[in-house]
Amino acid sequence: MKLIVAKTYDDMSELAGDILLTYMVMEKPQNISITGGRTPALMYEKLIPKVNSLNLKHRSTFYNFDEIPYNKTVREGVTITDVRNYFLTPANIPEENIHVLDQHNYKQQDQLIRERGGMDLMIIGIGADGHYCGNLPNTTKFFEETSKVIMPEDMRLRVGKGHFNDPAEYPDYYITMGPRSVMNTRNIVLIANGKEKAAIIKRILQGPVTDDIPSSILPMHPNLTIIVDADAASELDQETINKYK
Amino acid sequence: MKLIVAKTYDDMSELAGDILLTYMVMEKPQNISITGGRTPALMYEKLIPKVNSLNLKHRSTFYNFDEIPYNKTVREGVTITDVRNYFLTPANIPEENIHVLDQHNYKQQDQLIRERGGMDLMIIGIGADGHYCGNLPNTTKFFEETSKVIMPEDMRLRVGKGHFNDPAEYPDYYITMGPRSVMNTRNIVLIANGKEKAAIIKRILQGPVTDDIPSSILPMHPNLTIIVDADAASELDQETINKYK
Amino acid sequence: MKLIVAKTYDDMSELAGDILLTYMVMEKPQNISITGGRTPALMYEKLIPKVNSLNLKHRSTFYNFDEIPYNKTVREGVTITDVRNYFLTPANIPEENIHVLDQHNYKQQDQLIRERGGMDLMIIGIGADGHYCGNLPNTTKFFEETSKVIMPEDMRLRVGKGHFNDPAEYPDYYITMGPRSVMNTRNIVLIANGKEKAAIIKRILQGPVTDDIPSSILPMHPNLTIIVDADAASELDQETINKYK
Amino acid sequence: MKLIVAKTYDDMSELAGDILLTYMVMEKPQNISITGGRTPALMYEKLIPKVNSLNLKHRSTFYNFDEIPYNKTVREGVTITDVRNYFLTPANIPEENIHVLDQHNYKQQDQLIRERGGMDLMIIGIGADGHYCGNLPNTTKFFEETSKVIMPEDMRLRVGKGHFNDPAEYPDYYITMGPRSVMNTRNIVLIANGKEKAAIIKRILQGPVTDDIPSSILPMHPNLTIIVDADAASELDQETINKYK
Repeated sequence: MKLIVAKTYDDMSELAGDILLTYMVMEKPQNISITGGRTPALMYEKLIPKVNSLNLKHRSTFYNFDEIPYNKTVREGVTITDVRNYFLTPANIPEENIHVLDQHNYKQQDQLIRERGGMDLMIIGIGADGHYCGNLPNTTKFFEETSKVIMPEDMRLRVGKGHFNDPAEYPDYYITMGPRSVMNTRNIVLIANGKEKAAIIKRILQGPVTDDIPSSILPMHPNLTIIVDADAASELDQETINKYK
Repeated sequence: MKLIVAKTYDDMSELAGDILLTYMVMEKPQNISITGGRTPALMYEKLIPKVNSLNLKHRSTFYNFDEIPYNKTVREGVTITDVRNYFLTPANIPEENIHVLDQHNYKQQDQLIRERGGMDLMIIGIGADGHYCGNLPNTTKFFEETSKVIMPEDMRLRVGKGHFNDPAEYPDYYITMGPRSVMNTRNIVLIANGKEKAAIIKRILQGPVTDDIPSSILPMHPNLTIIVDADAASELDQETINKYK
Repeated sequence: MKLIVAKTYDDMSELAGDILLTYMVMEKPQNISITGGRTPALMYEKLIPKVNSLNLKHRSTFYNFDEIPYNKTVREGVTITDVRNYFLTPANIPEENIHVLDQHNYKQQDQLIRERGGMDLMIIGIGADGHYCGNLPNTTKFFEETSKVIMPEDMRLRVGKGHFNDPAEYPDYYITMGPRSVMNTRNIVLIANGKEKAAIIKRILQGPVTDDIPSSILPMHPNLTIIVDADAASELDQETINKYK
Repeated sequence: MKLIVAKTYDDMSELAGDILLTYMVMEKPQNISITGGRTPALMYEKLIPKVNSLNLKHRSTFYNFDEIPYNKTVREGVTITDVRNYFLTPANIPEENIHVLDQHNYKQQDQLIRERGGMDLMIIGIGADGHYCGNLPNTTKFFEETSKVIMPEDMRLRVGKGHFNDPAEYPDYYITMGPRSVMNTRNIVLIANGKEKAAIIKRILQGPVTDDIPSSILPMHPNLTIIVDADAASELDQETINKYK
């Protein structure tokens, strides 16, 4: 594990964007899975003009790692819609460089990634409850790969507010790459900012690996870089920072 | 994970030896950690004449991943003595290609491996109780790196029989690369044979990740190859074999 | 470069087969390009029973790197036919794990390999004239990728003898991955045996990089292992052997 | 090869700096060789505040790849002095993370890099005459590794102007990692800007591999990213740009 304590959310975002851009310009095409949500918003904002200015012919393929489908509505799910809006569309990533994980193809996700040479980079966030991707406490087990998961009631309500106008659209389930699928990637970058993430960052760096904190498994990955801002690092003791920085 | 069910102990040993030899002849020097114990005995026996016949100038460095030191006696510990006798000495590995982990230098082990570019390959066994390296149930925790561990009484007795003539030599502790140090390697090969390993192989392939079965963490590694003989695979259901083979 | 001087053709074949098998059992699927011709015949012979005994579910994909198509005949070309007969068919490699390069798809070969994550391993031979794959002296230039090449008259005659009953089947051209396509692979293993290869092995190890000896470029590859028997090494001076072994 | 045509020198510099930073924050320590000269000046200028802001504990080691020693003067050579002034000192890279190649240790350079796991990244420039590192036309041959090279008279004069006050300090020779040492690295980033580099960029992308243009070998590397500004790309035809971008 490599822990980077950036001074600000701005610094965290810039560094994460630099890493993403580096993978995007490698000679060998990379399989890259990126996150929606609020944490990466500034990362994408900073990255988009750089990508557009370079006028790349994209070799890499981008993946969403989880999805919340709409119920009774034929349109793309919440996650890929976010990832498109935040990054893929304004950065002009061609459709042929995008793989959309959804409720129809999730059973083939791991096999597909294998056939394309494996996932090279995942940039993920972390929830204050310890979730990452769609691996929520007590919903997915460690030995699972990409899975369909019944959506907990409180998650339905939370997700519902932002994305669903009509309660009939509320989904019963969501899709996520499971712990093994995520751990199977070559490089993981975990980003976190804000005081509300300080406790969970401390927990995964200083605590044991347990099922109820899904992200507690991540520090066991051989190539994990954690980038936090000062607020998200504020509960770490200096010894832990020195050990992993 | 890749699961290989070899028909016999002989086939398991040959394949594991082929993999080890492949790393030994790579262009880039490899850091390789190998195991003592009974499981790899035939692997080494088959490999030694091949290595000697090729008359290699060795680039790779070999490491022991745990050690049981002698008490009140100035000589090398149980593990490195085993690894020397079984492989390093008869295969004529020069001393400069061997790094001996012991009670004096274990605190520098992780840093040393980092500076040399990281561990490339570990070939490890597994105990019927789920231990690997010196990570025994309830003695090492998941978040630890290379550690000094108080030796449990029953282990003292077990180890004592084979290696110590004088009870005064019985050690109070042993050294082991911890779970994070092991998971931090690029490639892990786990070998197991015999019916007495069947239950634990089933457990780590089909069960959850829990502290009391230390090896249950290993299937989360992105590059793990498990090689078992038919006996060690005998409790696996066909679905699990098909999924990972 | 890593140079291995095996004592005999048998030793050379066994080591090359061990390397190929190691890639075949890796956790991540590998893209593997293998050679026809006489040099690897014993390698395949030794490898086939091992592969069959392991009852693998194959993850890797196998490629031919050049092809001599039949003229006016609708059947697979000379190279893939050889590779099938020598290895793919007796080793029971499923059709879905085989990609056949031919005169119809060669323009897409480099792009296809890119999309699948890049070529991981090529096992190639070398001609006494310095050719490798279909890169013959003065027929392909260094800056070319996968190419269609007009077949020289003497090659037509040579190839014709072994493979074509009817002169009308003699082809006008062949297909080959070019120098850049080959150099773009992650790991190259070059095998050579017999006194008739001794001069060219000396030339590529001790001479300059020049167009008329196409294989003189290969020692510039960052991950090249050359495996020769004692005869093929017989013209090397001891200094060169010591430098690269 | 991956060719990136940045619009401006500023864009080129920022992208190269992002790549360098990405390697500096990887979990596994990286061996990184960086260049002096004018081309990277802005890259370093942009990178330094980022590095300082992140307050890294550096894991990677930095290397100079060539050196012009002072004659009859006991002080560090021209290249490492440049690299220190431009980057290592203002970025606060600790001395223990710097390896200085000089006239005393150059014979051990390749062996040292091997023992540390191989060179991971080189960021290099290119001369209008086709040189890279100290590999000048007609001074180093393709099959050489790290070398001591007699300094050509015109180079003495050119170097002399900027760096030597006293003609007695003019050196008779310089040191350079040779073509094989450079090609042996895992990833190469070549940067070039300005109209005076346009002809040589065209030459190495569209021309053959020949000894008199040392950098013509670089496009044969399996992981090369070339970053140029619009001026340095101005002689490339659109087909070449499309092929490699």
